Formats: sequence, structure tokens, C-alpha cells
Amino acid sequence: MSATPNPTLKGHKLLITNTQAYPTAFIEHLNKKFPDLEVAHQKLQTLGDSDFDKSIYEGVTALCSSMVFPTRDQAPKLQYVQLSSAGANHLHGNPLYEGTDISFCTANGVHPPQIAEWVIASWLYFQHNFPRYINLMQTQEWKAGYDSAITVEDSVGLRMGILGYGAIGRQCARVAKAMGMDIIAYTMRERATAESRRDDSYCVPGTGDVDGVLPSKWFYGADKASINNFIAQDLDILVICLPLTPLTHNIIAAEQFEIMSKKKTFLSNIGRGPHVNSADLITALETGQIRGAAVDVTDPEPLPSDHPLWKAPNLLITPHVSGNSKHYYARVMAILEENLTRIAKGKPAINQIDRALSY
Amino acid sequence: MSATPNPTLKGHKLLITNTQAYPTAFIEHLNKKFPDLEVAHQKLQTLGDSDFDKSIYEGVTALCSSMVFPTRDQAPKLQYVQLSSAGANHLHGNPLYEGTDISFCTANGVHPPQIAEWVIASWLYFQHNFPRYINLMQTQEWKAGYDSAITVEDSVGLRMGILGYGAIGRQCARVAKAMGMDIIAYTMRERATAESRRDDSYCVPGTGDVDGVLPSKWFYGADKASINNFIAQDLDILVICLPLTPLTHNIIAAEQFEIMSKKKTFLSNIGRGPHVNSADLITALETGQIRGAAVDVTDPEPLPSDHPLWKAPNLLITPHVSGNSKHYYARVMAILEENLTRIAKGKPAINQIDRALSY
Repeated sequence: MSATPNPTLKGHKLLITNTQAYPTAFIEHLNKKFPDLEVAHQKLQTLGDSDFDKSIYEGVTALCSSMVFPTRDQAPKLQYVQLSSAGANHLHGNPLYEGTDISFCTANGVHPPQIAEWVIASWLYFQHNFPRYINLMQTQEWKAGYDSAITVEDSVGLRMGILGYGAIGRQCARVAKAMGMDIIAYTMRERATAESRRDDSYCVPGTGDVDGVLPSKWFYGADKASINNFIAQDLDILVICLPLTPLTHNIIAAEQFEIMSKKKTFLSNIGRGPHVNSADLITALETGQIRGAAVDVTDPEPLPSDHPLWKAPNLLITPHVSGNSKHYYARVMAILEENLTRIAKGKPAINQIDRALSY
Repeated sequence: MSATPNPTLKGHKLLITNTQAYPTAFIEHLNKKFPDLEVAHQKLQTLGDSDFDKSIYEGVTALCSSMVFPTRDQAPKLQYVQLSSAGANHLHGNPLYEGTDISFCTANGVHPPQIAEWVIASWLYFQHNFPRYINLMQTQEWKAGYDSAITVEDSVGLRMGILGYGAIGRQCARVAKAMGMDIIAYTMRERATAESRRDDSYCVPGTGDVDGVLPSKWFYGADKASINNFIAQDLDILVICLPLTPLTHNIIAAEQFEIMSKKKTFLSNIGRGPHVNSADLITALETGQIRGAAVDVTDPEPLPSDHPLWKAPNLLITPHVSGNSKHYYARVMAILEENLTRIAKGKPAINQIDRALSY
């Protein structure tokens, strides 16, 4: 038996730029795992702060950053950029991104636990009549009120439709399935094989649905008829976790709310505000076409103080916070470590951006 | 190979007494499954209504009821009573229960899905700062407020301690585990073997933890030192799902809140109000010993309008409603059907009350 050589990062230099304090514990951990790797840290005042000595980029082969990048001249040896954001829209027009073949990797997979919790929390908040009981606490009234109008329906056997079955949708599915729900999935492209249903992006251990085995049925398509057919599948809750593209802009509007009225489908939007037509959402809530909605994103955003959406009934609005978590940065570091390990072993990085698709 | 004989209930008569309309679909289903079984239904005005012609009890061998029971003389052939309640306290002193060996079976297992949802919903309601955003909706303010004071911590890696790992606790565990939580369990008696960790009571398919495999560690004991040791296990949330007995009365009071202050453990009580000392709970919330609490049961109950608990901070109170669900009665019928099948096959019923323990 030949001994497996320890993976090495000899000749590599990692630079971490962020607004946080020097990550002592993480860098000690990296030094132990990769004794050959040089590690540097540049603290920024804000995520966009570029007011520091660029000589720190000298010799850098791996960079972890959110919004600030060197020129090719400043970092000629750079081969891997780990973004600390899941989105990559801000890279458009950047010559380092568009004019090189450097591997840019997203923080995709960092958000699913907290966003799925937000989806489940807001769904149950309404299903279990919490608004009623919060009001009764104000007036200090103990009123169980066992009348049928306020009966609770638990989620067993109810159906969750997930529009965009990526990392976030998969964790929504995992929790909903544990509550006894039926899950159906929608993706733009067909996923006919087990292999195509896998999601190889970063996944927090013990969460998600890497193999895509939780949905009882998959739907797909990029056209309106396919979307409408999915929404018509007797959904109790529809979760939007799509990227925003010209195809998905305004994907839920009057026509879709009409379809949702059959089951009074609850709408949960943790994608982007413009996925949903705000005026039509207000109408759907006011006329009772849908039982309720929870939106962490709005159109426009921030939502102006005098916007009528604030007063629509059976609606929870939060100000684009569902992706926040104290665990966020530790997960970015976990992806960074995984990719450094892959570089050392000569394997392709995870979460690489496909420049043709821009995600 | 000999053909397995169809199970038969020849000579048996089932009587269902409840406040609902004649359960046509269920009785048709039973008639198809057990053509020999005679089925009768008595509609009651209230759950305690006994103002009907008792001759309907004649020949009854199986009875499904909540609070109204015949005398032995009225139903001499009765051998199985299916309660539509999970509790059996109301049977004390009833000669049919105390003076016969009729199998009394509870509706244990009907509540876990909705109660677990209530536990998860109220935990996430606080963890995700929903009270803050509900207030901001009132003033129509879009304020993400990325300051550390309101940072969200998702549940991955956080620890849930379940005091009383029965049917309800097991479904709390299933959902929490799907969110990435660590689960530790407490039972009165030691569960050292895989067999002893099983729960053979009714379980809604696809829910719960029948085999008891979800907890990373089990604790046990009936003494205060054992309870205190369990509460000291760095719990992020402590869920009380115990029966109320002299042993469990006041099980969480000042001494326990002091222990919980180390981790500012969130308290969730879906057991009974007297498990928790109300005055000490108020102190724990007011002094920040615990990060928050959610109680579906209070002491006293109903909670008087002028009780100080109503105004304690970081507390959600609901008026003993967490067990309600539209699916409730359908699940009672599922248990009834399972037990009729077991009678036909000569097997022991599930959910039988142990008269020595009274549950």
C-alpha cells in the first residue's frame, strides 16, 4: 500500500478581505491543515471599501471577497475567487470576471437553513392563527374560540409547491416533509434522471435534499403554460425561490392568482420582489383569492412608507432579512475550506459560476 | 399455501357517539372492510350530553366516545372503548373503567403534528424577530437594521431538549432535526435498549420517531437532580411535553430558570400549566434569564384578564389551542379502524390505557 500524499498548497497564497476582525481560529485551522499555504487578511471598513495598500494582492492565488477585487495586474497568479455572496450580478462588467478564466465561486448554500425557517415560520404563523392570539394578548383575553371559523389545519397531507428547486427550495422541502407535507418541485429544465436531480452546490450537512428525492413529482418549463399548470396542482403553499431573470419577472400576477384561488394557495416569496405583481397581490389578498402571503422581498424595495401593500390583509412583510444568520460567515469559510482542499487535490471547485448563465 | 382468512367482526356492534354529523364516508368504508360488523351512530348535542335512548347500547362490543359511557348493565358485551381524547383523567371514579377489564384506548398520537408545528412556529417566531417586523408593519417602516442586536440565529446546530419524549416530543424532534438541530431526550424511566426506545402508540404515517433514533443522547430519572442535570445541557430550547403528575408539578421554577440562564434557554410549554411556576416564569422573562417563552397552557387556566403573565416580555401565550386541528377526528377514526382490525385478528389493541399508570 502506498501512503496517500497529504494534499498540499505549496506556493499558494490566500487573501481574505472582509469587514470582520482577523479570523484567528479559522486561520489557525487552515495553517494546521495546509502548512504550506500563506494566509493574509485585509479588514475593510465597508464591503465596498477599496482604500487599502494593493501590494497585499502580490502572489495571491486564492481570494475570498464580497465586492472588492484586484485588477489582473495586481494579482497575476489569482486562480480562484470565493465570493461571500450567493448572487453574482455585481460582477457584470468587471474585467477580472469577464476577461479571465479565474474560477469565481458563489456562497450558494449558505442561506437555505435560515430562509427555509423563515418560510416555515411565516406559513405556520398564519396556519396556527398567531395574529389572533397576539391581538388577544394585547387585550389580555383568554379566548380559545372553538368555532369552525378559526379552526387550525395542521400541515399533514397539505401540498407545498416549490418554484425553483435549488438549494433553498430543497431545505424548505426537508422541513415541510418532516411535518408530513407533500412536496412538488418546479425547475426550468427537465430533470428526468436521478443524476439530473442532484444539486452539487454547497449544502450545510444534515440539511437540504442533495439527491432530489423529496418531491413526489417534478414539473418543468420556461413558458407560462407550464408555470400555470404547476400552480394549478392544488397547492396549499407556493414558495418562490427563483433567480430574477426576464423569464421570471412578474411570474405571479392576476392570471396566476386566479388559478391559486381554487385552493386559496398561500404565497411565500423569498426570491425577488419583481417576481410578484404588487398590485395584483394586494387584490388577491383583499378579495380572498389567496388565504395569505408572506414576502421578504417587495417591488419596489425598500417598500415606501405610503405603499398600499403595508395594509393588505393576511400578509407578513419583512425587509429582505430572511437570509441573515449569525452562522452566515462560518458557512462561507466552510465553502472556502472545501474549495482549497479541492485545489490541493486537483479537483474542480464547488459553487463555480457558469459564465454563460451568470449563476 | 393456505389462504389467510379475511378478518371478521361477526357478532360485533360498533357505536360511535359524538357531536358530529353521521360519518357516512367512514361507516361505508368500515362496512366494506368488515361486512359482518354492525355500526351505529348517536349524535350528541355536547360532548357530555347523555340525553338519548340507552337502548342503542344493546349488543355494543365496541364504543367510540369522548365523555359519555354506558353502565355495565346497559352494555354487557362491551369489550373495547375508543376515547376521542388523549387524556383519561375523566375516567377516574367511573365504574365501567374501574370495575371491569374492558380495553380503554386513548387518542394518543392524534395531536403530535399540530402541537409540534405550534412548538416550531413559536420558537421561530422569536428566533426570526417576527415581533419586530410585525411592529414595523404597523408603522409602515422598511428597516432591515443589520445591527448585531437583532441578528438572527438559524437553528442549525442548536440544541432542543425534550422533557417527556412521547408521541408529541418525537414529532417536535423530527421537524427540529430537519432544521439541523441536535435533539436530546428525557424520559422518566431509563431507555437503555433499542426496544425500550420504541413508541408503539398510534403515529400519523410519515411523522414522529417511532424507533427513537433521533436524539443524540437520552437522559432519565424521576428526581430533581436528574431533571436539573438535563436542563443544564446547554439547551437552546426546552420543550415540556410531560403528563401532569405529582412528580412533574412545578417542575420548572426559580431553581431551573437559574440553570437555564447560562444559555438563556427558550421555554416551550405544551404540557400543562402547573408544570411551570408562573411567578418564576415572569421573573425569568423580566430579568432576561431566558431569551423567551411560548406557553399554550398556563397556571391558572383560563388566565385571568388581570394576571401579570399577560404583560411579561418575549412571551407568546395561546389559550390551550395547540392540539386543535381539522384533521383531529379523522385520526381518531384511523385509530378506531386499526383497533377494530386488531380485534378481528385477535391482536391486542394499540393505545390501551395501563390502569396502574392511568395513561
